[in-house]
Amino acid sequence: MRTIITGGGGFLGQMVARALIERGGLASEPGAVTHITELVLLDQFFPADHIIDERIKYETGDVGDTTLLKRVFSTQVDAIFHLAAVVSAGAEADFDLGMRVNLDAARAMLEACRLQATPPRVVFTSSVAAFGGELPAVVVDSTAATPQSSYGTQKVIGELLISDYTRKGFIDGRTVRLPTIVIRPGKPNRAASGFMSSILREPLNGEPAVCPVPPEAKMWILSPQRAVEALIRAVELPGSAWGWNRTLNAPGSTVSVAEALAALEAIAGKDTAARVRFARDPAIEKIVLSWPARFVTERAERMGFKRDAGIDDIIRAHIQSLRK
Amino acid sequence: MRTIITGGGGFLGQMVARALIERGGLASEPGAVTHITELVLLDQFFPADHIIDERIKYETGDVGDTTLLKRVFSTQVDAIFHLAAVVSAGAEADFDLGMRVNLDAARAMLEACRLQATPPRVVFTSSVAAFGGELPAVVVDSTAATPQSSYGTQKVIGELLISDYTRKGFIDGRTVRLPTIVIRPGKPNRAASGFMSSILREPLNGEPAVCPVPPEAKMWILSPQRAVEALIRAVELPGSAWGWNRTLNAPGSTVSVAEALAALEAIAGKDTAARVRFARDPAIEKIVLSWPARFVTERAERMGFKRDAGIDDIIRAHIQSLRK
Repeated sequence: MRTIITGGGGFLGQMVARALIERGGLASEPGAVTHITELVLLDQFFPADHIIDERIKYETGDVGDTTLLKRVFSTQVDAIFHLAAVVSAGAEADFDLGMRVNLDAARAMLEACRLQATPPRVVFTSSVAAFGGELPAVVVDSTAATPQSSYGTQKVIGELLISDYTRKGFIDGRTVRLPTIVIRPGKPNRAASGFMSSILREPLNGEPAVCPVPPEAKMWILSPQRAVEALIRAVELPGSAWGWNRTLNAPGSTVSVAEALAALEAIAGKDTAARVRFARDPAIEKIVLSWPARFVTERAERMGFKRDAGIDDIIRAHIQSLRK
Repeated sequence: MRTIITGGGGFLGQMVARALIERGGLASEPGAVTHITELVLLDQFFPADHIIDERIKYETGDVGDTTLLKRVFSTQVDAIFHLAAVVSAGAEADFDLGMRVNLDAARAMLEACRLQATPPRVVFTSSVAAFGGELPAVVVDSTAATPQSSYGTQKVIGELLISDYTRKGFIDGRTVRLPTIVIRPGKPNRAASGFMSSILREPLNGEPAVCPVPPEAKMWILSPQRAVEALIRAVELPGSAWGWNRTLNAPGSTVSVAEALAALEAIAGKDTAARVRFARDPAIEKIVLSWPARFVTERAERMGFKRDAGIDDIIRAHIQSLRK
């Protein structure tokens, strides 16, 4: 099977690629693994230490570039992970860029899928940013999407298009609303939620970090390892397991900044945790505190999606990944 | 003030225009009416008996035509009723046409608004088609939008854009999710819900009508008169009355086909009601029966939106309007 990862140069794209290559294929039907013959990673940039394999093909360019899409989709595509996006603070700072990448490029990708002989499976990543405003104390599977950021708005529009393209039989789509990914490896990015990774990652690396929100601020988080598992589960589950509703809140954990720093101190010591200082940033706070931190994700659990055991495990998994 | 009605050639656009001209202005602030100096009606076609007034200017063209929009928006626009749309069965039959008009043209209109010196008030009409799939027994203000038609999908995307453009300060937007309008005047259109008007309008006009759904099928309906009042209330309410949530389920009435025909018989006699025959149409049934028929619209009622007294009143109001 031919698989595409848009945003394949991002940390999540690279991790999904690594997982797919290690597995060798996808079990699109229970028990029947289909081998990956080609894995196309599409992005504007790729990290220097990108994964190398004879099955992987790198395509450099804009995901909204229809000429590029036409070429990449000229041979049947069986599965797509559409991860390419302008992140939250980026889409808030540059509205037009967010619309162009998060909405127009997603549509261009969906149109390319629609032209395939067999409708491909499409996994789309949405976010807790789908929610905002006056929310219930706990977000459940039926809670209405009420985004309060342009990023969230564009993601929910993507969800709706995935659902309608699926209903029309143009694709076989699945949207996973991921919690904030913590601990993101690598450098800080423009995601408003990036600090939650920073305040753990930088101190563990001997560097200082700034926390732009108060210690009591809570987030709904998932480790990169679990996020990759969730995306692969999303593509492997048969369409019948999804049914008519193609949007899913993935499980996660509710963790406050204070709890994260206490766990960091317990695992890595007082000096490490002391590398974090607080300096409130109203712009970041406004976006991040509009996102819900408490969910009940019954449907995802019935469908076999997994959360981390807790923030301690998330920190230990990160330390483990650095040793690899 | 300058006001624009897109879809100004449609029955609702013409009715809104008539109401605005009769009122002479809009009370954008409580107690302070601003006179309408120009009312631009934009549409591809206009009825032969269109409203004539020295304040009304007719613009013939595509609402997504950026050259046309640029011209119409070259002088400050204070209020817009964006009613232009490809209706439900039309958007289902021609997916690309629906996307172009219901999504791309709405975006072009929003971009034109964004360029105004003062953010205009924008009223956007959405629909019960925002809902579908496995719904709760009663749809409430917080029920998630889960459209099961391309029309509904495109409308919900419009709602999200209206909200985000408002949040960004580009416009002062308000979305009203209208019930099915019954009794629509004029000729049948491609709205999947059109039969509910047809089975009352045609018999009253001495003509036969076909009902494509079973007698027990229920719909959530509103008279054209109440719908026009709702759109004018939507534009007149101050932004503070809307708050952060710019999408509203308008009040309506739950009426079955059987109840509508019984009321028709009571008001216009057995012979009139006998002009309706049943011939099921699976395509229409699939769209219409995916829409909810029972709502509790607490927020709209607090904001002063009104429903009809019942189906009898709706039929009598229609008979009254024919005599004008």
